[in-house]
Amino acid sequence: MSVRHVSGQQLARLMGEVRHERPYYAALAREVRGLVLDGRLPLRTRLPAERDLAAALKVSRTTVTAAYDRLRTEGYIASRQGAGSWTALPQRSALAPASARHGMVPPEQDDGGIIDLGCATPGAPEIFDQAVAAAVAELPRHSSGPGYAPAGLAELREMVAAGYEARGVPTGPEQIVITTGAQHAFALLTEVLVEPGAPVLVERPTYPHALGALRRRGARLVPVGVNEGWDAELVAGSMRQAAVRMAYLVPDFHNPTGHLMDAATREALVAAARRADAFVVADETFAELAHDLTVPRVPPMAAFDRGGRVVTIGSASKLLWGGLRIGWIRTTAPLVRRLTTAREPLDLSSAVIDQLIVRELLARVEEVRAQRAADLLESRDALARALSERLPGWEFGMPEGGMSLWVRLEAPVATPLAEAAARQGVRVVPGPVFGVDGVLEDYVRLPYVQPPEVLRTAVDRLATAYAEVEAAPMSRPLPAYV
Amino acid sequence: MSVRHVSGQQLARLMGEVRHERPYYAALAREVRGLVLDGRLPLRTRLPAERDLAAALKVSRTTVTAAYDRLRTEGYIASRQGAGSWTALPQRSALAPASARHGMVPPEQDDGGIIDLGCATPGAPEIFDQAVAAAVAELPRHSSGPGYAPAGLAELREMVAAGYEARGVPTGPEQIVITTGAQHAFALLTEVLVEPGAPVLVERPTYPHALGALRRRGARLVPVGVNEGWDAELVAGSMRQAAVRMAYLVPDFHNPTGHLMDAATREALVAAARRADAFVVADETFAELAHDLTVPRVPPMAAFDRGGRVVTIGSASKLLWGGLRIGWIRTTAPLVRRLTTAREPLDLSSAVIDQLIVRELLARVEEVRAQRAADLLESRDALARALSERLPGWEFGMPEGGMSLWVRLEAPVATPLAEAAARQGVRVVPGPVFGVDGVLEDYVRLPYVQPPEVLRTAVDRLATAYAEVEAAPMSRPLPAYV
Repeated sequence: MSVRHVSGQQLARLMGEVRHERPYYAALAREVRGLVLDGRLPLRTRLPAERDLAAALKVSRTTVTAAYDRLRTEGYIASRQGAGSWTALPQRSALAPASARHGMVPPEQDDGGIIDLGCATPGAPEIFDQAVAAAVAELPRHSSGPGYAPAGLAELREMVAAGYEARGVPTGPEQIVITTGAQHAFALLTEVLVEPGAPVLVERPTYPHALGALRRRGARLVPVGVNEGWDAELVAGSMRQAAVRMAYLVPDFHNPTGHLMDAATREALVAAARRADAFVVADETFAELAHDLTVPRVPPMAAFDRGGRVVTIGSASKLLWGGLRIGWIRTTAPLVRRLTTAREPLDLSSAVIDQLIVRELLARVEEVRAQRAADLLESRDALARALSERLPGWEFGMPEGGMSLWVRLEAPVATPLAEAAARQGVRVVPGPVFGVDGVLEDYVRLPYVQPPEVLRTAVDRLATAYAEVEAAPMSRPLPAYV
Repeated sequence: MSVRHVSGQQLARLMGEVRHERPYYAALAREVRGLVLDGRLPLRTRLPAERDLAAALKVSRTTVTAAYDRLRTEGYIASRQGAGSWTALPQRSALAPASARHGMVPPEQDDGGIIDLGCATPGAPEIFDQAVAAAVAELPRHSSGPGYAPAGLAELREMVAAGYEARGVPTGPEQIVITTGAQHAFALLTEVLVEPGAPVLVERPTYPHALGALRRRGARLVPVGVNEGWDAELVAGSMRQAAVRMAYLVPDFHNPTGHLMDAATREALVAAARRADAFVVADETFAELAHDLTVPRVPPMAAFDRGGRVVTIGSASKLLWGGLRIGWIRTTAPLVRRLTTAREPLDLSSAVIDQLIVRELLARVEEVRAQRAADLLESRDALARALSERLPGWEFGMPEGGMSLWVRLEAPVATPLAEAAARQGVRVVPGPVFGVDGVLEDYVRLPYVQPPEVLRTAVDRLATAYAEVEAAPMSRPLPAYV
């Protein structure tokens, strides 16, 4: 049962000014539909009683009844006698039974069968339960004390440092600070390295929440296009001309394009950062997610660094599990100390048991990598095959790692496509969300963290949605997806 | 074994300009001692080889050898042939064997027997292991999905809401947002409610990390004294005159004074906030830690609120365990939505397993409260008795809840006392840390989260330190404790 509910007053406020066109009930229904589609009104939220909404809007109750009836017919609300009405999405086809394949099943099915391609995050790997058990066994060593370690537990810092050593980058535990996820790591770095108003180079497209953290900090965003990969001269030129303070790069299986930066480009960009006196923040969230583990690895960005210019972010969220909320930063020991101080007013320290679980999982990281590689490769190929069959005009490269296809549509219709897809029961993120200036409307990101049969169903629905968009291109302004 | 180490260059930078008084080796030793005492050089940090530090400082190696010898004699460094030297604190008396009393033992003994009265945070309660086991059993329901829930897991939000209901404050789960600890909760509230430069009322003394969060936000701090409790007219007058945007209050077993605000004052302050158009942020971190559970509870601050002016912060850290990093905010549903959006660029979501553990512990909160009450009462009385015997000139009230005595010294010597205490093997936090303007130098906070025998040893050492301070009051400027 849903526990969310929204009062008549709240719903009236969410809608703002409903245009008083006739019939008013239809305008009202359209507003509610918009709130459901753009997520401001979450699914399975209980709607106010008709008389309450009527009172809040100062309209007659029959108007609200008519609006609810329209929404019910369209499938945007569901009702049951005595239990009221709640928000829903139209059901076109039943979802195939979720695969039991561990770690690749879709989120809990309390969302009425919608397939979520919005979030590129898999479930926990097969050895997760064993790692949890091992961590729980370690917990009593910690739970008798206060449980605070602002730079992270020593055993996890050592394990993370050893991981860099194994990749050819000499690293001591004093160079590691454990954070409450990679997003927290990046937020800390923006606080310590970026003054409000300072120019920061970002890839276009890039990870939307990194843009969110930079906007929160008041940074000036300097985008450089990477749809075709990194043009070292172009990136270096932007660093220099804009005098950027920081360059935020995702060199390993870039999110969302999937590109892998080659060694020569890494070397060139680190050198360019040195000349421009900028920090390179290398987000390695996807670095362990190569699909073919026999291919030699490109050295990490930090391998080309001499003077502490490259700051590396690591994350448990994609390789291990997002529900752990553990990430880390590799940098110089003095910057580790500044970051440790900077996190105190924010969150003091990271959770102990999650750090212990991550340590156990990293101790067996090759098993996790092997499972992820096999699962992701199978899902990538299934998604690619389904797209080629059902939507042959859509273009995409085949990434050698990561979790997403970055798909170019035949026309700049990503936002109406996303809305049509939601009506068909698939959530996708349109291209503009990954950019800073409203471009990329001809792209969508399609993650392949779900099992092949779910992805095939998703592509069926996308094909229906795309046909709908092609048949009747929308012209009215659409809600911004976030 | 220690894993931290510091290079000659780093140590030279930490010291800044060493005054070139003679003998230079003594000045050098004093600087290193200062770094150890104020925590900038953590305990068990491996020091650079003598020749490396000599090179970094451009002095002769014999000078560094002499400085290290002096520090070794004083007990600030320890050395072993072939293993180098590392930072330490002088040992005066061996710590009594740590009590095995669950949940009240001191932190891991890798700190050379020092008693930490700096941190008022107990270990986990007795039922912790059972709660962890129950949470682990629930985990598979979540670990197959992405693990993100920006407002918190539904089952924990319901449990927290039910806790407010039980205290007489009607609350729905949509009024709760789960955060990554109470500090994170307060940081989010400063971001959403306080513009840089806005005046914010704070108690003096108050929780130092709250001051840190407000300073980070650029708030203008308006302190009001509460050493003798809250003067409702004074607080209300400050709210009005300074036109504060927010008042940060700790009404339940205030940190550090231990005061409990009565119902009439709560009602008056909520009314004053309404007139001043200010939010009251009520930090209830200690609210469940009454020492006598038969005494009727004062209604929560939110019980006196009608218009959503009182925002309540709750925390797992003191009642349950700090290593969990879970807190929450109770407020209006619209503000919950703003806070949920505001946390996205910061940390996206809180850890799933920790939320499940907190849910299990809150389901048995009366057991936890009973254990805490018994342990804290015993420790409070032991600390008070030892102080009355050994340091009869120190004054303090007997708090009816919380975890600390707020002790008034006979002279404003809290900072030199803290330094002398560190030499004796006790960490204490001097009064000025709890204030905004360097006053409170005649106070120290003495937490009683450790077992009676540890606290008696601590008081013995404090008495020695105090005698030392009284005999030779220091006049040189001292490092700021944080």
